[in-house]
Amino acid sequence: MTTAATGLDRQLEELGAEALLIFASSSRDADLARWVGPVHLGLSLLVAPRGGEPRLGFFTPMEREEAASTGLAVLDPAALELPRWTEEGLEPPVLLGTVANRALSLAGIAPGRVALAGHGPVGVIQGACALLAKAGWTLVPGNSLSLLLRKRKTPQELAALRSAAEGTGRAMREVAALLARAEPRAEGLVLEGEPLTIARLRAAAGRTLAAHGLEQPEGNIIAPAEEGAVPHSTGTPDRVLRPGESLVVDLFPKGRLFADLSRTFCIGQPPESLARAHAAVLDALERSHRAAAPGIRGNEIHDDVCRRLEAAGYATTLSQPQTTTGYVHGLGHGVGYQLHEYPTFKKRTGAEGVLGEGDVFTLEPGLYDPQAGWGVRLEDLVHLGPDGPENLTPLPYDLDPRAWG
Amino acid sequence: MTTAATGLDRQLEELGAEALLIFASSSRDADLARWVGPVHLGLSLLVAPRGGEPRLGFFTPMEREEAASTGLAVLDPAALELPRWTEEGLEPPVLLGTVANRALSLAGIAPGRVALAGHGPVGVIQGACALLAKAGWTLVPGNSLSLLLRKRKTPQELAALRSAAEGTGRAMREVAALLARAEPRAEGLVLEGEPLTIARLRAAAGRTLAAHGLEQPEGNIIAPAEEGAVPHSTGTPDRVLRPGESLVVDLFPKGRLFADLSRTFCIGQPPESLARAHAAVLDALERSHRAAAPGIRGNEIHDDVCRRLEAAGYATTLSQPQTTTGYVHGLGHGVGYQLHEYPTFKKRTGAEGVLGEGDVFTLEPGLYDPQAGWGVRLEDLVHLGPDGPENLTPLPYDLDPRAWG
Repeated sequence: MTTAATGLDRQLEELGAEALLIFASSSRDADLARWVGPVHLGLSLLVAPRGGEPRLGFFTPMEREEAASTGLAVLDPAALELPRWTEEGLEPPVLLGTVANRALSLAGIAPGRVALAGHGPVGVIQGACALLAKAGWTLVPGNSLSLLLRKRKTPQELAALRSAAEGTGRAMREVAALLARAEPRAEGLVLEGEPLTIARLRAAAGRTLAAHGLEQPEGNIIAPAEEGAVPHSTGTPDRVLRPGESLVVDLFPKGRLFADLSRTFCIGQPPESLARAHAAVLDALERSHRAAAPGIRGNEIHDDVCRRLEAAGYATTLSQPQTTTGYVHGLGHGVGYQLHEYPTFKKRTGAEGVLGEGDVFTLEPGLYDPQAGWGVRLEDLVHLGPDGPENLTPLPYDLDPRAWG
Repeated sequence: MTTAATGLDRQLEELGAEALLIFASSSRDADLARWVGPVHLGLSLLVAPRGGEPRLGFFTPMEREEAASTGLAVLDPAALELPRWTEEGLEPPVLLGTVANRALSLAGIAPGRVALAGHGPVGVIQGACALLAKAGWTLVPGNSLSLLLRKRKTPQELAALRSAAEGTGRAMREVAALLARAEPRAEGLVLEGEPLTIARLRAAAGRTLAAHGLEQPEGNIIAPAEEGAVPHSTGTPDRVLRPGESLVVDLFPKGRLFADLSRTFCIGQPPESLARAHAAVLDALERSHRAAAPGIRGNEIHDDVCRRLEAAGYATTLSQPQTTTGYVHGLGHGVGYQLHEYPTFKKRTGAEGVLGEGDVFTLEPGLYDPQAGWGVRLEDLVHLGPDGPENLTPLPYDLDPRAWG
């Protein structure tokens, strides 16, 4: 992890911090995962001194081999004096603070500023931090630093994102295939004699994702008509799509890393307003694909999409920040160990708002009309590779699932 | 949520705290979930004053309806002055601290002691807490309090646990059925002309779990022979079970809440030592089932199991804390929104160590021999109901999957 360590030194220098300290409930923690790779560890911590060697602390002897397989220098339970603290029956906040204090000392760091990252229980963290502050450490937030460090993906991370995107595309094709095979009755789609409910579509997508080793820790969105007209709605399980209604399908499962993909469907003749919105969103997505390049601010592309959609007669948050009709959300977000990472497409002045080579992010324009009861969102996952942008989710955009072949 | 609020008042009084403050990344947060029920919220907080009405703070206007559907009094983004803080471009730690300070004031709490719960990014929490401390609040850890509050399950939680246990049982039966159908060749099991790898068993379990709406955020353990002899090993995907080897299958998926279930299999004639260990573990499990009752300390049952296994000639951590052979882990743990909750079976003096009516927990004795290369674990999920203990995972215990029928 030499490259990350190099990037880290610069970040720590900017913060005036001597070290990065990561608290994690497991090796899947978004801030810890890149340092340790795909191993299985429970409660753990990492101390990375500026200009020094990072050390992984683990809390149970059973994890000795997993910890060793990371290739990192380790602080084992004996070195962290865990048997002693456990014997003394320390409460979790005091235990964590005591062990972290010991880990910082063992890493040879003199009391000073330390940046904090990782994730955990709020009360336990607060208690541990209070103890560290008493012991002379000055603590500063380091989660943003950690997000910046992992903005550019490693080859292993890119492979995991690619694999997740592939499985997600299969699940989307499975949804399209079920919709295409369904019989379009006025009261709703029927497949194999049964209503093709949102629950059935969701179960089919879930099975396909599971077969590709993907989980859905954040759920998914399969939202028809008036439900899809509100970007936040996930879709009522027993609802059945009717001909002419829109169906927003947004899948964002996780393997080692996340993927994120949206398409919008309509069976039968779409209403004119829906067809027009779909064309405008597709145009916006294509423009975004062309504009996304290293050195460009995501927010510039977002604003450009807003202006384009406003010229076509749609409201957007650029001119009407509180609008719930039209284009009501951001253009995209970085994707990695968490669903929302850097780069950000929000208005930001720092490096987190600038697209860079090696970044992986979504592009997802949409249009919504809660009054008319439709929503459209088209979302691709993009990698800015050394040879230019690459669409990791190359699927059809057609409203009509029968055109998906 | 009146009952929880009542339990809360007593807990807060013991801590000398005026309120509980929960920070959560989403409504799935283990400390927040019980308060809000099965709704979809992103970043949110809850302020529950001692003797007062709990209030739910949410951060985006799109979530207004979901927040209202919880039935809780809400603090909406306007009340929390989020548009202003966002406009001013506050960094996440400052934003969170500022919003929490405002929420505490709006809830009518005078600066004093506040217990903290929920989960989040370490640096952001530390920064927010520093700001709250400056504003006059004294912060104390409250995650344990939150765990105690939800030790006794509500009827809705019990239904979710029951449903998760049912799906987990189906997945275990699916694994047993594949093992039973496989052809036992000396070089390893073969099914439909292909080696029956751990990966195939894992994929089949994953599909069955997904069909029951269950995810595996913590993974699973399907560990043959020498791998199952180390309780921590998850099982190598391309490994194939051979006749006479043990296979530890431990599934711990999550629907709204978790379930947890383990069985151990062997195809063909088990070695004498494995058959004997299996009988001893089954005896220990049956004893544990009989002993588990309201008012009993989990650790007492654990110690009793240790003594019984030591009498049968096995090493246990009771007499040899560092042993890696014999019975090397705890007897069980509470299960809920997190995989490991209260009651605890560790040596504890507080209420968290006492089994109570309405608790749901695992009983999971095991025996391991890394030198001989086998492991045995049998784990049930138990509910202490008003009419006595109920096994939520009533499956066969047989080593031979063909006896599972």
